Amino acid sequence: MAQKQRIFTVHQTISGSLARRGTLELPHGPVETPAFMPVGTNATVKALYHRTVSDMGYRLILGNTYHLYLRPGIEVIKSFGGLHRFSSWDGNILTDSGGFQVFSLSRLRKVTEAGVSFQSHIDGSRHFLTPEAVVDLQCVFGSDIMMCLDVCTPYGYTYRKASEALRITTDWAKRSKEQWKTYEGESNGLLFGIVQGNFYKDLRSQSIEEIGELDFPGIALGGLSVGEPREIYSEYLAYAARQLPEEKPRYVMGIGTPEYIFEAVSQGIDLFDCVFATRTARNGALFTRHGMIQIKKARWEYDQGPVDDACTCTACTRYSRGYLRHLFKCGEILGAVLASEHNLLFLRNLMEAIHRHIESGTYERFKGAFLDAYTRGED
Amino acid sequence: MAQKQRIFTVHQTISGSLARRGTLELPHGPVETPAFMPVGTNATVKALYHRTVSDMGYRLILGNTYHLYLRPGIEVIKSFGGLHRFSSWDGNILTDSGGFQVFSLSRLRKVTEAGVSFQSHIDGSRHFLTPEAVVDLQCVFGSDIMMCLDVCTPYGYTYRKASEALRITTDWAKRSKEQWKTYEGESNGLLFGIVQGNFYKDLRSQSIEEIGELDFPGIALGGLSVGEPREIYSEYLAYAARQLPEEKPRYVMGIGTPEYIFEAVSQGIDLFDCVFATRTARNGALFTRHGMIQIKKARWEYDQGPVDDACTCTACTRYSRGYLRHLFKCGEILGAVLASEHNLLFLRNLMEAIHRHIESGTYERFKGAFLDAYTRGED
Repeated sequence: MAQKQRIFTVHQTISGSLARRGTLELPHGPVETPAFMPVGTNATVKALYHRTVSDMGYRLILGNTYHLYLRPGIEVIKSFGGLHRFSSWDGNILTDSGGFQVFSLSRLRKVTEAGVSFQSHIDGSRHFLTPEAVVDLQCVFGSDIMMCLDVCTPYGYTYRKASEALRITTDWAKRSKEQWKTYEGESNGLLFGIVQGNFYKDLRSQSIEEIGELDFPGIALGGLSVGEPREIYSEYLAYAARQLPEEKPRYVMGIGTPEYIFEAVSQGIDLFDCVFATRTARNGALFTRHGMIQIKKARWEYDQGPVDDACTCTACTRYSRGYLRHLFKCGEILGAVLASEHNLLFLRNLMEAIHRHIESGTYERFKGAFLDAYTRGED
Repeated sequence: MAQKQRIFTVHQTISGSLARRGTLELPHGPVETPAFMPVGTNATVKALYHRTVSDMGYRLILGNTYHLYLRPGIEVIKSFGGLHRFSSWDGNILTDSGGFQVFSLSRLRKVTEAGVSFQSHIDGSRHFLTPEAVVDLQCVFGSDIMMCLDVCTPYGYTYRKASEALRITTDWAKRSKEQWKTYEGESNGLLFGIVQGNFYKDLRSQSIEEIGELDFPGIALGGLSVGEPREIYSEYLAYAARQLPEEKPRYVMGIGTPEYIFEAVSQGIDLFDCVFATRTARNGALFTRHGMIQIKKARWEYDQGPVDDACTCTACTRYSRGYLRHLFKCGEILGAVLASEHNLLFLRNLMEAIHRHIESGTYERFKGAFLDAYTRGED
């Protein structure tokens, strides 16, 4: 199995920060970290050609097991020989376990020791997934990184219920690993464990210890950025991140704004993903160095300048804010396409700048300057 | 004014057909005819980057005066210096007069000698447009080809009402031309007249004579393909086309299926436009050499082949029918993007083949072979 090989190398650490530069060796090529992963829920990064995403330099995108299991279904993906061939994406794919979606999207879900039963949000059909089945699905997908099925809990959960969810999450992680072992020699995908524990420090520590003992090739912090206040996110991120093993890639699920990315990088996190960049793009919200702008606002009606004159995306090199506003006001697809490309290139450029500044030891200074301009919000 | 120059040259005619190859010299470069014009209602060919459209070889697209007048409005377009700069399209733009949209989209419309009053389909606001105002709008747009405001009538209209609509159309054409003359030296755009007359041959002949006398640089046949049976379309197309002046570009508005395009070309028509290719694409209907296919159908679920293996579009060179079906079933934007690109490239390739076959005198044979395969519908 792949975890026997060295899959992650840290090249550079810096003083005064836990930020680190690394390379993650995956079946479909190396990924430079820290890395932001665009989300491709239905095996498509919404609104964009795959080549637009890869031309930006993204080599690792995310797919959602829950969605792909329901549609097109595992038999279709199997017949195509996996997700890469089905979707014609030649980079790496990380698939989540579906745990988060079962808890946020599906209806009538019920967790037992055995697994989770739920009703599809698409057609109401009934399904039952076990940790073993979720590993099986991801092996059929041919995912480069697979995630264990876990029990996600929201902010504000009781200690008793969070503790019970944690117990099941650890049990499922063990079963996931056993199932993954059965694919030895067949699958090159790496299985990552997920830390839960809600917002209780002893539960977080317990989860990190239990997941750590299972020696997965990588570890994710789940259940952060689930509606808690910013300070709580920061506190629990810092608390948990320091306890994670040094030598393994660390992944925080579901974060993707510049503020949260900088904070995660500062805590030594290597991977993150979020729908934020593309979802808000489709609603007309665009990243700029001076904060996000809402392109639908009347103030842009006559504006002939680009969204961000330092950006090299199609929107910023060819179209004006006034024209983009017009596209959004008319509900034109091109607006969603241009905005999605812009926001993903913005984050890609941000990650490359973060790489350079970690390498030159100037990361924390860069972070300060960037966030100062970004949150001052000239626009 | 531009009509003093020679703007249209017929290079080749063939025996046994009225089909002809020509070049139309427009302010933003030459257009080889017969030419299909993609529709860009809101100054965007729906779902596509402008460069995708121009890379296919399209040098003339259509914009809708009615839509652009309502949104973003003439003041915005004026402040950008016209439609080309506003939308960043460096090819030619033909704008319709808005007549068709006023009659098909707006509410509470009322035609008088003076002009047409109507309520916006977007916000219910009240507007009044005269033939002169419509020329003014298109001059501000900087349209390469402008159309006269006309009174469109549906299939099944009475003779009396069709005759009255024709009388106003001719009067408005005269006023349009007078208004256009006032832009001499300022605008390079060409003003085309529109023939009406509904489905009454004497009215059609009368309209052709009256519009012909006004000596516009080009003439359009309006009021065809407005819901009449195929045979009636053919009959009236042939009847009217033969009476149009030889030396001028002839435009049939609102046609865009291979069957209708072939028929128009056979009657010596040089220009046509239609939303069909892009509108049906967004609904999952794709052109193939063997007829249209509906990609959402269950039969494509496991299909690993391309939509059309002779096509060089992104969808056909990179993605499978099965994956396209999946995108459409999930309502993914990429599905609409890929299908729109495919359908427009299909029509562009068709037009280029038509050009070659007119040049080599084999047009009617090509037409027969193409339509035989297309209508037999292997798929």
